[in-house]
Amino acid sequence: MVFYMIGLGLGDEKDITVKGLEIIKSCDEIYLEHYTSILGVEKEKLENFYGRQLIMADREMCEEGIDKILEDLSKIPEKNIAFLVVGDPFCATTHSDTYLRAIELGIKVEVIHNASIINAIGSTGMQVYRFGEIVSIPFYTEKWRPYSFYDKISANIKHGLHTLCLLDIRVKERTDENILKNKKIYEPPKYMSCQVAIEQILEAESVNKTGSVNKNTKCVAVARVGFSNQLIKAGTLEEFLTYDMGGPLHSLVICANELHPIENDMFKYFSKK
Amino acid sequence: MVFYMIGLGLGDEKDITVKGLEIIKSCDEIYLEHYTSILGVEKEKLENFYGRQLIMADREMCEEGIDKILEDLSKIPEKNIAFLVVGDPFCATTHSDTYLRAIELGIKVEVIHNASIINAIGSTGMQVYRFGEIVSIPFYTEKWRPYSFYDKISANIKHGLHTLCLLDIRVKERTDENILKNKKIYEPPKYMSCQVAIEQILEAESVNKTGSVNKNTKCVAVARVGFSNQLIKAGTLEEFLTYDMGGPLHSLVICANELHPIENDMFKYFSKK
Repeated sequence: MVFYMIGLGLGDEKDITVKGLEIIKSCDEIYLEHYTSILGVEKEKLENFYGRQLIMADREMCEEGIDKILEDLSKIPEKNIAFLVVGDPFCATTHSDTYLRAIELGIKVEVIHNASIINAIGSTGMQVYRFGEIVSIPFYTEKWRPYSFYDKISANIKHGLHTLCLLDIRVKERTDENILKNKKIYEPPKYMSCQVAIEQILEAESVNKTGSVNKNTKCVAVARVGFSNQLIKAGTLEEFLTYDMGGPLHSLVICANELHPIENDMFKYFSKK
Repeated sequence: MVFYMIGLGLGDEKDITVKGLEIIKSCDEIYLEHYTSILGVEKEKLENFYGRQLIMADREMCEEGIDKILEDLSKIPEKNIAFLVVGDPFCATTHSDTYLRAIELGIKVEVIHNASIINAIGSTGMQVYRFGEIVSIPFYTEKWRPYSFYDKISANIKHGLHTLCLLDIRVKERTDENILKNKKIYEPPKYMSCQVAIEQILEAESVNKTGSVNKNTKCVAVARVGFSNQLIKAGTLEEFLTYDMGGPLHSLVICANELHPIENDMFKYFSKK
């Protein structure tokens, strides 16, 4: 038995690798993880292209149900399972955990890598070798406004590095009320926009007063990287407070204070677009 | 006219995406960049799989000859060119430059992303969100022993972050003598091993005495990531001084001092392998 963890890349059904596609076609069961990211196409389009049915794996299944799936798999030597992940399979912690659980059960695991936002962000022209620690910006709520991500942005800027900001995704979330009542009623998905991310960054600065960023700090906003309607736009934080990047997913690069010559040319190019 | 920049991923001919393969089959000319990284297969195998001939693009062509290629392309509306890059197209600075030159000539550029070591390093179990600045370790020579990469490793460790070390590749290099004599005689390719990288890191520490690393510092060595004979091995720096990871390419993760629980489990798993 083999448990294949296959990256789907970022855009549509054709961003899978040839190797990944061949494996999918040969597997007995195919799961699609669909809560840490989204592709630009619907499940049905993937199914038509693969010629196979997909089992949707939401957060509950990935965190709780996967044990059962792996245990069953470990008992059937001739069975193979494919576990499809948007981007690259190792860009979410949960998946390392799944990898280990499979190994412990004596299952052979094979990983098929693909593009993820972590390398595709290079298409902004900001050099991948000049990025510091990645940050995840969570949606602020009325009571919960954590600023720890901002410390990381500040540290990166201090060291002359860019910051890739991954913006919050809320899929299959329940309200506090529904959790308390144990009701499986889910809120509609929420994807943070660059606009909201920048509002939160500027709030963090106004509270922390590190002086790391201000309204004129350079940034590059990206939307739908790898999709046919991908958008890359460079400007200042202030400019993006009123700029609509369109549908999800958005990510944001907070630039280092100094840009290298080619980065600067790329920045200018994406400012005009 | 379109200039397609297509990532080939890391391993073999089947790591290209379905989209990338369709584009290659439709292009008039196909260049293969082959000096910033290597695949696990020969040119001929790629050509057979694509059903197309490849033009090899070495450093000279990428840095000097590409202008002519793009200028010619800009004059032929019906012509399309594919430029193939091992890994992801934007993981080398030269390629941002090529992108800009094409744009300036009014050529439409399309980028097809793929996996690169920058995200595939997640398969070590070290979380991609806990990496600091990437470092490139150059081969020391008798006279040239730069330690600046070590400052970055030290800074990452100080901030509790892992460091991805990319190890030097010397392809189509000429000796000083041959450069002076203007002779185009090239040395055989040289790829830095994890062993050599660690010797250089320990030398940098012995000179700089920052105390950031010592022989017991944890690291994860990887060789041929994405190849069918990929090797991932965890241990201390000292252990790798005498451990042979086999053929190129090698990369190295210098771990943060503290590992998260799942990272720790992955570390243990890769220690035993």
